[in-house]
Amino acid sequence: MKALEEKILKDGEVIGTEIVKVDGFINHKIDVKFMDEMGNEFARLFKDARPNKILTVEASGIAIACSASRSFGYIPVVFAKKAAPNTMTEDTYTAEARSFTKGTVSLIRVSKKHLEKGDRVLILDDFLAHGEAGLALCDIVKQAGAEVVGLGAAIEKTYQGGAAKLRGYGINVKSLAAIAKIEDGKVTFTKSE
Amino acid sequence: MKALEEKILKDGEVIGTEIVKVDGFINHKIDVKFMDEMGNEFARLFKDARPNKILTVEASGIAIACSASRSFGYIPVVFAKKAAPNTMTEDTYTAEARSFTKGTVSLIRVSKKHLEKGDRVLILDDFLAHGEAGLALCDIVKQAGAEVVGLGAAIEKTYQGGAAKLRGYGINVKSLAAIAKIEDGKVTFTKSE
Repeated sequence: MKALEEKILKDGEVIGTEIVKVDGFINHKIDVKFMDEMGNEFARLFKDARPNKILTVEASGIAIACSASRSFGYIPVVFAKKAAPNTMTEDTYTAEARSFTKGTVSLIRVSKKHLEKGDRVLILDDFLAHGEAGLALCDIVKQAGAEVVGLGAAIEKTYQGGAAKLRGYGINVKSLAAIAKIEDGKVTFTKSE
Repeated sequence: MKALEEKILKDGEVIGTEIVKVDGFINHKIDVKFMDEMGNEFARLFKDARPNKILTVEASGIAIACSASRSFGYIPVVFAKKAAPNTMTEDTYTAEARSFTKGTVSLIRVSKKHLEKGDRVLILDDFLAHGEAGLALCDIVKQAGAEVVGLGAAIEKTYQGGAAKLRGYGINVKSLAAIAKIEDGKVTFTKSE
């Protein structure tokens, strides 16, 4: 998605050789109009996958997932939780996910009543780096007896290997912008799939 | 908002006398079409406040804030963070917020570059209970030299006193549904303001 590549180059902020910050329009301050454009693009890319539900993980995936839901004609969004509130009394599916940017491992969980056998689940998130969150979400979908029909990320960091790992498991992975490398403060894109 | 009261009665789940769970359409599984209807209602209620920015806190406020942004013609959404990722290297405004449902106190933070002096900020969240998150967000807006032009909650739990406390500080507080009491598993609404 050319517009996203341009926005990353214009508003993204490079830290070292691993991280590009997009907190000015995706994961702290949100450009909702741009989210809707990304939502439309996800709907175009995954149209043939015919998802009936979108699964993401709190917090940065929520805005993107809601925009995509709208583009798919308002299919439900479920977001996995990282902490268990005391209102979460029911049975849950859980999986461990490591966060590269926070340096933590969280147990993410989804209430069993929100994922059903037979669901065709599209997993969406803001970043796809090492693929840890994606793998945890796939695990949860599998536990529910549902099917992962696709996994989309706004920004794939190809050099961190998560997309390749997930494709190796047979997952239909697509991203809107794929970063091949960050060198001397400069972001280089590769063709996204 | 009649539709929200009806949805709480139909899909909400009462726990004891303090809590009503709305994880089936607001804060775990999201009914995005209904979020958009709530967003329209917030835009109607706070039209005269002329906000230029919406502030919420991760994670449950994000979907509502994005829907309202759209109804206001796409004003930016900023969500306060509860944990500091290692990409958050810049100066932040911080305030402490107690979570009634999680039994924790978190330090919430907003990057200084995303709130500016002169901003007219509408604070939105899913619940307004004891008002702790609302007060913390107001504090952050004040630190930025910006103005809180309104505070809206989808669901106000009037009996927990947060709305009255915030109104006592002169904040323009409105909610889409106001719960007066929960007794014998039954939710009773009062007129929301």
